[in-house]
Amino acid sequence: ADIKAGRQIASAQCRTCHGLDGIAQIPVAPHLAGESEIYLQTQLKAFRSGKRTNEMMDVVAKNLTDDDIANVAAWYSAIKISVEMPE
Amino acid sequence: ADIKAGRQIASAQCRTCHGLDGIAQIPVAPHLAGESEIYLQTQLKAFRSGKRTNEMMDVVAKNLTDDDIANVAAWYSAIKISVEMPE
Repeated sequence: ADIKAGRQIASAQCRTCHGLDGIAQIPVAPHLAGESEIYLQTQLKAFRSGKRTNEMMDVVAKNLTDDDIANVAAWYSAIKISVEMPE
Repeated sequence: ADIKAGRQIASAQCRTCHGLDGIAQIPVAPHLAGESEIYLQTQLKAFRSGKRTNEMMDVVAKNLTDDDIANVAAWYSAIKISVEMPE
């Protein structure tokens, strides 16, 4: 997969809701930062096929090729995340 | 919502795949750390109703009450995340 190509897709089609860095910009969208490539690919393909549905994602996913999906999954997956639990 | 009750649910029913801290332990499961309460609640209710399907989550979600869902969503949502993009 081509991470730079994935970054371009993320910047053009994902960032308004999910952030270029994978931190969601709106509460109804999930963070994508650091999610596994297989998870991201599976979900994008599920939106594309209609197995999983969401008003926004149905529209976005149907225009993505398998290569696009592999590339954008590689981008978000490559973001490192760290967490801090509440006391 | 009761975060401590949510932590107990997470520890008993979610952690094997999603981690108590919301960092996924297996590639097919997503990280949940810091996701919004509304996103987490919507997805759990979608698994419970069958709108969204997944072999594992179908089983887990069907035993959760609305209060359980609110509480476990509050737990994972309260985890702070930070990210670092690739160069």
